[in-house]
Amino acid sequence: MNPYDYATSQRDRFVEQLRAFLQFPSISTLAEHNGDVVRTAEWLAEHLRSIGMERVEIVPTAGHPVVYAAWLSAPSGAPTLLFYGHYDVQPIDPLDQWVTPPFQPTVRDDKIYARGATDDKGQVLLVINAIESWLAVRGMLPCNVVLVIEGEEEIGSPNLSSFLHQRRQDLACDAVLVCDTAMFAPGIPSLVYGLRGLAYLEVHVRGPRRDLHSGSYGGAVVNPANALARIIAALHDDRGAIAIPGFYDDVRSLDAEERHLLASLPFDEEAFCQELDLDTLGGEDGYTTLERLGARPTLDVNGMWSGFTGTGAKTVLPAEAHAKISMRLVPDQRPDRIAQIVAEYITRIAPRAVRIQVDMLHGADPVLVERDSMPMKAAARALEVTFGRKPVYQREGGSIPVVAEFQRLFRVPVVLMGFGLHTDGAHSPNEHFHLENFHRGTSAVIRFFEELARGQ
Amino acid sequence: MNPYDYATSQRDRFVEQLRAFLQFPSISTLAEHNGDVVRTAEWLAEHLRSIGMERVEIVPTAGHPVVYAAWLSAPSGAPTLLFYGHYDVQPIDPLDQWVTPPFQPTVRDDKIYARGATDDKGQVLLVINAIESWLAVRGMLPCNVVLVIEGEEEIGSPNLSSFLHQRRQDLACDAVLVCDTAMFAPGIPSLVYGLRGLAYLEVHVRGPRRDLHSGSYGGAVVNPANALARIIAALHDDRGAIAIPGFYDDVRSLDAEERHLLASLPFDEEAFCQELDLDTLGGEDGYTTLERLGARPTLDVNGMWSGFTGTGAKTVLPAEAHAKISMRLVPDQRPDRIAQIVAEYITRIAPRAVRIQVDMLHGADPVLVERDSMPMKAAARALEVTFGRKPVYQREGGSIPVVAEFQRLFRVPVVLMGFGLHTDGAHSPNEHFHLENFHRGTSAVIRFFEELARGQ
Repeated sequence: MNPYDYATSQRDRFVEQLRAFLQFPSISTLAEHNGDVVRTAEWLAEHLRSIGMERVEIVPTAGHPVVYAAWLSAPSGAPTLLFYGHYDVQPIDPLDQWVTPPFQPTVRDDKIYARGATDDKGQVLLVINAIESWLAVRGMLPCNVVLVIEGEEEIGSPNLSSFLHQRRQDLACDAVLVCDTAMFAPGIPSLVYGLRGLAYLEVHVRGPRRDLHSGSYGGAVVNPANALARIIAALHDDRGAIAIPGFYDDVRSLDAEERHLLASLPFDEEAFCQELDLDTLGGEDGYTTLERLGARPTLDVNGMWSGFTGTGAKTVLPAEAHAKISMRLVPDQRPDRIAQIVAEYITRIAPRAVRIQVDMLHGADPVLVERDSMPMKAAARALEVTFGRKPVYQREGGSIPVVAEFQRLFRVPVVLMGFGLHTDGAHSPNEHFHLENFHRGTSAVIRFFEELARGQ
Repeated sequence: MNPYDYATSQRDRFVEQLRAFLQFPSISTLAEHNGDVVRTAEWLAEHLRSIGMERVEIVPTAGHPVVYAAWLSAPSGAPTLLFYGHYDVQPIDPLDQWVTPPFQPTVRDDKIYARGATDDKGQVLLVINAIESWLAVRGMLPCNVVLVIEGEEEIGSPNLSSFLHQRRQDLACDAVLVCDTAMFAPGIPSLVYGLRGLAYLEVHVRGPRRDLHSGSYGGAVVNPANALARIIAALHDDRGAIAIPGFYDDVRSLDAEERHLLASLPFDEEAFCQELDLDTLGGEDGYTTLERLGARPTLDVNGMWSGFTGTGAKTVLPAEAHAKISMRLVPDQRPDRIAQIVAEYITRIAPRAVRIQVDMLHGADPVLVERDSMPMKAAARALEVTFGRKPVYQREGGSIPVVAEFQRLFRVPVVLMGFGLHTDGAHSPNEHFHLENFHRGTSAVIRFFEELARGQ
């Protein structure tokens, strides 16, 4: 039996293991789930030991622990691959929109539904499945592997950097693999060569000492909710561009080759709208939808709250208004500088009668990787064999904060080979992962180990 | 003993009765309190019977009941006074800002703290105290009185109009008294001659079918929260005026006499700011603070919510955004027309990619009453005797929806004589009522009955 046949024979068990992994509510941003996050790390470490990883550790950090594992007994001269993934997940609200509970994994129509299914537990487990398949059949892998699976990706990886620095010698590698991205479309294998960065801010607007009667005070007391709305409105101009002075200063513009590459992707805008139940899209004038989604910076309100939000009519002039506002960044924008100019701009345009506080919750650097590095070529071959067609190269709109850090720290090629779909509902209710992609991903990674060891 | 001395002798008991009245959480807008609202009406009816009102009824409506009571045995030729008040209260959030629980009335520094203390249970009870004082000492009142105390004022009195029409013959009167307004300042008795109206809307902005990952979709999918912010921002111009075409069409402009009257009021803007912890005020260019507060229409966001509002960073592009937006109106604006032009404007300026729904939650007509009607003169004399100074005449920024209805239905003078203070925290945490004003109000109403019967 070869590793591929082994993986095929183990499909049902792999799904059961995924189900077990997904049952843990490892929501990293909510303190009440700290215990669940630790239990998830323990389950993961135990599973890695059971498949034969030589060295498995749960490494404490100032926040949630990192699960570290290594198998370093490949033939002399074989390359070492560092795999990065995360076992933490996003919050689950709005809970009432889930068809089945987010931590009771349920298979429907060959998809497994649960928070974290596609982002990133399913994709972490398929890499572990690939390692298991090699070790079970051959007792060895064609290359060395080091796994770093963290519990803080969804909150901006605040402690990963110090882990990477402290354990640098245990992380020596020739390439980095990340499986936390989406395929361009069903059946179209994809390699991501660009990731957007992130600057996530929380804006607080404070007015009078207390909530006021809107009849007795309205008209003379500046309303913090109205003020916040005007601030948010002033963050974009009428052409959909971001209106903050200096915001675009460090944006690398798209060259003709890349615009052509993006334009050549088989993108069906009508189907995209239909899936979202939208009549039309929007965005920055002068750019295509794919450019807007992957290659241009954005600014979105992620949450906003003020005053009375219950049923009915309360005639209150709220004392405070709040918004979570994040910007997706592209090379060479830097999150800290962006956060600073946005905070300055907001403070400057706010009415004098309110007090402004802007907190940065997290940041991530944008990334571009070489499209023709040796590990990227190995990945392309693995995908072509597995899917029966060449992969497409795309930019993804999301952020994986640590990728820029890997580039800086190890100076080795990074491969972003993901098996999710944009329609999987990552960060949304009813997140799911196609089991077909779970199994194909397993096969592709089995092959990638071989191709990477072969080199060229 | 005269009624004044009787009232003085009963002060402690009056406060205990107020405490009992305030213990009921009669929040009319929250369905879970429907039973509490009914129990409040029952307590009130029982109390009215106990002081000797001749006829007391709890009148069911399609919503919360009206408490009706009458005493019609005054000497032949005496006028009949209709008193209107309400026993329902506003919601209590933000609950964490209350020093003592909103339905555990607590006296501190000669103030009683509870939801409804000043708006309007305290003011209802002082009128009942005045009636009791006459009946206890003299066995009669100098004028007939009819009481209409409703349970839906805070939700726009949706069923009061049909009650008034159905029971019109039981409500025949020569004057209407409402005690639901504030004094201009401590120690300054006040008669309100203008009330603003209200148009209260809820705006729903809906985009994609579900919450989306802001990285994967941001930049191309129009964000409903950003869209809502732009809509709200576009409701005002840069000079603080409301930017909705036609909004000011029916506004009666202030004449020189009235501007002079308002300018002559002893208003201390610095103290006003200090009490609210504000550095400065704002509002429509070209008007004074008192004009902005009472004589000009306004537009305030009362509540706003969208997306993720928990702790931390969730990178979601929300599917929906919502706002409660209300406008205070002045004569001769009509709530229905205003609601319609605002809804049309919002729908017109919204981006094509989102769907807009605008619901009107409630409306109230603005009011101006004659400053020199006979009942107003009687009230002025009663206030002067009680407070030792002539009352000031003012416009109040709030709305009492039923006042316009009384004017239309009975065509008799309306007297708006209130004993609250703007600093009492109506609609806010830590609402309270000064016991000094509770007792003085009782005396003033005892006197008003006499002055009204005397006429001129």
